[in-house]
Amino acid sequence: MSRFFSEKYAGLEPYTPGEQPQDRAYIKLNTNESPFPPSVSVAAAVKEESELLQLYCDPECRELREEMSKVFGVNSKNIMMVNGSDEALNFAFMAFADQKRPLVFPDITYGFYPVFAQLNRIPYTEIPLKSDFSINPADYTAINKTVVIANPNAPTGLFLGLDAIEQIVSSNPDNAVIIDEAYIDFGGESALPLTAKYDNLLVIGTFSKSRSLAGARLGFAFGNEKLIADLNTIRYSTNPYNVNRLTARAGIAALKDNGYYMNNCRIIEKNREKTAAALKDLGFTVIPSKANFIFAKSDRIGGEKLYSALKEKGILVRRFNKERIADFCRITVGTDEQMTLLTDAIKTIFKEMNL
Amino acid sequence: MSRFFSEKYAGLEPYTPGEQPQDRAYIKLNTNESPFPPSVSVAAAVKEESELLQLYCDPECRELREEMSKVFGVNSKNIMMVNGSDEALNFAFMAFADQKRPLVFPDITYGFYPVFAQLNRIPYTEIPLKSDFSINPADYTAINKTVVIANPNAPTGLFLGLDAIEQIVSSNPDNAVIIDEAYIDFGGESALPLTAKYDNLLVIGTFSKSRSLAGARLGFAFGNEKLIADLNTIRYSTNPYNVNRLTARAGIAALKDNGYYMNNCRIIEKNREKTAAALKDLGFTVIPSKANFIFAKSDRIGGEKLYSALKEKGILVRRFNKERIADFCRITVGTDEQMTLLTDAIKTIFKEMNL
Repeated sequence: MSRFFSEKYAGLEPYTPGEQPQDRAYIKLNTNESPFPPSVSVAAAVKEESELLQLYCDPECRELREEMSKVFGVNSKNIMMVNGSDEALNFAFMAFADQKRPLVFPDITYGFYPVFAQLNRIPYTEIPLKSDFSINPADYTAINKTVVIANPNAPTGLFLGLDAIEQIVSSNPDNAVIIDEAYIDFGGESALPLTAKYDNLLVIGTFSKSRSLAGARLGFAFGNEKLIADLNTIRYSTNPYNVNRLTARAGIAALKDNGYYMNNCRIIEKNREKTAAALKDLGFTVIPSKANFIFAKSDRIGGEKLYSALKEKGILVRRFNKERIADFCRITVGTDEQMTLLTDAIKTIFKEMNL
Repeated sequence: MSRFFSEKYAGLEPYTPGEQPQDRAYIKLNTNESPFPPSVSVAAAVKEESELLQLYCDPECRELREEMSKVFGVNSKNIMMVNGSDEALNFAFMAFADQKRPLVFPDITYGFYPVFAQLNRIPYTEIPLKSDFSINPADYTAINKTVVIANPNAPTGLFLGLDAIEQIVSSNPDNAVIIDEAYIDFGGESALPLTAKYDNLLVIGTFSKSRSLAGARLGFAFGNEKLIADLNTIRYSTNPYNVNRLTARAGIAALKDNGYYMNNCRIIEKNREKTAAALKDLGFTVIPSKANFIFAKSDRIGGEKLYSALKEKGILVRRFNKERIADFCRITVGTDEQMTLLTDAIKTIFKEMNL
């Protein structure tokens, strides 16, 4: 820390992204990326756009929002596009939470929520998940705080039904409710239709998982026109050109190929169920997932040991050194081939360790 | 504004980017973009990278910082890469200014500074430029505040010599001094070498102007290792993947073609001097510019009238509705052909209006 660093941020503990080791090639099942490349039209669109890079991008993202409008069936004035959904989350925390409207979210969820809260000096409460890692909707009903729920939740993969979401939204009419749907396309049901009914519901999504654009950084928020306008006040005061030309064009091309991506999601769901069954056969406890990852633990080996043994065999998974979940590993669902390599590797590890 | 918007931001007046009208094709001399496209290798690099977009980008921007290191002769630990230099400015304001270390910058300068200050609730003082629009270094000497200076300044184009910069930096040893060098490559001299001598100097730059990548969003900051570490604490708490894969690759390709871009800067300087002379011949007051724009006014026509008359003729320039400079237009320096069209259009306007 320099002598000049503001004391406001002196205690800030930044988010730790999943590791990206450069020492060797790994089967990367640690950051919930898609195993499928973008559709072929993305490369052509991006190349064409690269000849116009001397010109600023459209801060209003008009063309991109129009294409979003077509795919999601929502008016473009109800859409904000951002540089990855992390940015939408940060803007939403800034806009809709403060000392007077503190935040509330589960104790086990996306690790960036407490960081954004600390960054913006917003008080927050973490509500413990139930013992089966599910969210108890009653815990958030009429709580009179700004609610943030990842649905499906991460790193558990558990999906909370829309009835429960609606109960939380309708019982907190004076607070924004932020539903982070980064993993919604793998079997969950989006709360998007509820945004037409509730002016306090913000739904956040990303192109990073189901649409194979993690490296392009493209996220979005859906909500009432006024919520979106508030987010844009923050956006235009921070980084109006946040979505660059190449990413906007990649997003437009991806939306035009929506069928390709949705089909990939079906393949990932199939691979997920097959892998979950294989892990259960090996004695693992597997949390029922509606995301593109599996959260699982084995009584035969600790989480850290399994993580390290897999890494040694060239397979990266993610583990969180946190109470209640320290023995779990979060395993991204990849191709059928990758998942077979994973389960085979676990079998070998068990054999080598005489477990 | 929604019922949920935090009162912290209720009074915030966002930055207004230069207009991007879609109604017709304009000669765009209003947002200081380069008239030259990116070098040819950028498109190929971007296309290649577009096939890996399903994977997250490297949050550390290792390859890009290594290439920066080669071109700028500075260690990669002294470099931070960001999603446009606006982001570097916002992070720097957050990190190095607060109630205890208020900001100070000129009254006429980049319009985003007061917005970032308001966004982050940092008190600030605007020091009037001298009557010739130059900065008086004595105004910032031993001022004991966090100093921000655009050099060359915008929208004036005036360059402040490095002796003056060093005087400001050395006389404020307990505060960060932020030099925003967005326009440095058009005849100015960078303060970068001074970062080795002073631990409180942060130099911010961009690929948007001299390197023809406005639409890709790529900015950077140079400074003491500890200053960069503080900025990274903010960055990793905000948007660790802020520089996407496509932009990083475009940046690397552009740095490898540095000669192309620096040659373009020489052409722009030549066009600038020729245009400045032509405008003076037409009776304009022209501020001596070391940027890729000209700040000029005519006693024969008000700033708003000239702006509107040029727009009607298909030429966009920028005007700021602000005391002292309301009669000036800021004209981006384009190709020789574009600048001839501009001066011809002004001659026609004068004739049509009998001025």
